[in-house]
Amino acid sequence: MSKTTDIPALAVKVQTGDRRALARAITLVESGRADHRDQALALLSALGHTKEALRIGLSGTPGVGKSTFIESFGLMLTAMGKRVAVLAVDPSSARSGGSILGDKTRMEQLARDPNAFIRPSPSQTQLGGVARHTREAVAVCEAAGFDVVLIETVGVGQSETVVAQMADLFVLLLAPAGGDELQGVKRGIMEMADLILVNKADGDLKAQATRTCADYAGALRLLRKRAQDPEGFPKALTISALEVEGLQTAWEEMATLASWRQNAGARAQTRQEQARYWFAEDVRHGLLQLLQDDPAHVARLQQAETAVAAGLKTPTLAAAEVLDPIRRRLQ
Amino acid sequence: MSKTTDIPALAVKVQTGDRRALARAITLVESGRADHRDQALALLSALGHTKEALRIGLSGTPGVGKSTFIESFGLMLTAMGKRVAVLAVDPSSARSGGSILGDKTRMEQLARDPNAFIRPSPSQTQLGGVARHTREAVAVCEAAGFDVVLIETVGVGQSETVVAQMADLFVLLLAPAGGDELQGVKRGIMEMADLILVNKADGDLKAQATRTCADYAGALRLLRKRAQDPEGFPKALTISALEVEGLQTAWEEMATLASWRQNAGARAQTRQEQARYWFAEDVRHGLLQLLQDDPAHVARLQQAETAVAAGLKTPTLAAAEVLDPIRRRLQ
Repeated sequence: MSKTTDIPALAVKVQTGDRRALARAITLVESGRADHRDQALALLSALGHTKEALRIGLSGTPGVGKSTFIESFGLMLTAMGKRVAVLAVDPSSARSGGSILGDKTRMEQLARDPNAFIRPSPSQTQLGGVARHTREAVAVCEAAGFDVVLIETVGVGQSETVVAQMADLFVLLLAPAGGDELQGVKRGIMEMADLILVNKADGDLKAQATRTCADYAGALRLLRKRAQDPEGFPKALTISALEVEGLQTAWEEMATLASWRQNAGARAQTRQEQARYWFAEDVRHGLLQLLQDDPAHVARLQQAETAVAAGLKTPTLAAAEVLDPIRRRLQ
Repeated sequence: MSKTTDIPALAVKVQTGDRRALARAITLVESGRADHRDQALALLSALGHTKEALRIGLSGTPGVGKSTFIESFGLMLTAMGKRVAVLAVDPSSARSGGSILGDKTRMEQLARDPNAFIRPSPSQTQLGGVARHTREAVAVCEAAGFDVVLIETVGVGQSETVVAQMADLFVLLLAPAGGDELQGVKRGIMEMADLILVNKADGDLKAQATRTCADYAGALRLLRKRAQDPEGFPKALTISALEVEGLQTAWEEMATLASWRQNAGARAQTRQEQARYWFAEDVRHGLLQLLQDDPAHVARLQQAETAVAAGLKTPTLAAAEVLDPIRRRLQ
């Protein structure tokens, strides 16, 4: 992307739903180059505060049929006349060299649907970087007038928190499992779910899926319901992405919860809190980044951390020593 | 505490188990005064890397009988010849003007026991401050040769994370409850528990306690077991702190898990990770503190946050603007 990109023109094209402009805009916000960053910030201001899409966070470990779900669910929504964007937060994409969504053939039909837009996760070594860029991609998609933005991630824990902090709803996709395998749900993730969907409720697995769903429903009842949510949430349902069973019900539950929260003012409040959260995160992260750019500080930091891990220094003492030179420079 | 405190002498007295010296040492590490902070850091270095106590994190919402449990459990341990220190992390203590442990009459016998030491939570407006001071109090207690350090907190969520990050084991104390009340467990807290103790398994509540325990045991089975832990953990047990029932078994479970982790090298590893965690936290917190001391920065920060919350600026853009002057000063 050249330094001479006409940002205002790009913004207008995005707002009018130009898909190539949308792709370029997202490439821009995902770029790590300093000059691109400046253009990205300019673009985001130019796009401004636009229409709000329903942001759905979706998590599911590999093998639960996430791609099949997104394909079936997305096609159902576009068939309802909704425009759907699919973004991914995949911290592993940097390592694996390609995001879980990189292989669009896994959602061939949806990828070809003019009312759908699928974007792989930006390759980043840091989850923080992925988070910031995906957040900005969500803003771009909202500016482009999408009705639903699906933000998917793999079930690795930290990335769920990131996705939950940029979504209006959090959906957890699970596979039917026997008693012991149920332990597979990573600590803390179930607590974020507004809706648990037990997939593969078809063929031989149907009965098992129903049992698994009941188990999770029981577990969800042990969790405190979120303030302002209607009775019965969080919920667990069985679906079959393959046979397109239960997706309509799942969507209705999401829509019910979303509009309830919107009417209760909870959605606006959540988005405000999320914005504050990301602002604080960006300040913290940016601050540490400033120091990471200082080799002398990095050396002191590593030395101190080694001493701390070895029990030679208390964390407090070591931190005080590391911060001393910075205090002097800031004064 | 005078500026002329003889730190080396105080350290020696603490190490020889002088209770008044211990109390003074903890007062010193809890003090917010800059000159006290320097003395506290000197004291911690003088105490050095000493004997390791078993650090047990304990959480329970008001009304579950936490004080009664600590009294009965503590007296059982001292009767076994163990020296027990009880510390509290209570972020509310600053507001309520007195910690949950402030009223020692609630554990009258234990408070009088020469082999026990009970310390209320330091009054701090910030949980971060409470955390640092409690962490240092734990170190002082280990230097004083205690066998068990019980770190208790109220069931408010964030403070549990803090306690879990300074404990070898995390115990969650719950009361018998009917189906719906079970929702009372705060999201995420159950996930930290190595052991859930359902208290009040006595009199009319005994049957209900057994049912509640079974419910939680079922919920715990849905959670992935921690690596390196023996089969069956996390566990749920019923106890009666009042009738001193099941406390022996609870202690045996804790001891089993603790020694298993120690033999597996998991405890040393956890403590290293905790030390790294707190070091990073102290650096982050100290860094932000440095900036909090700069009125111009604070004003910029608040202005930016307002704009972000109002949706007038993206978090990224606002953060970049706030960090710009700091970048210049650090260069």
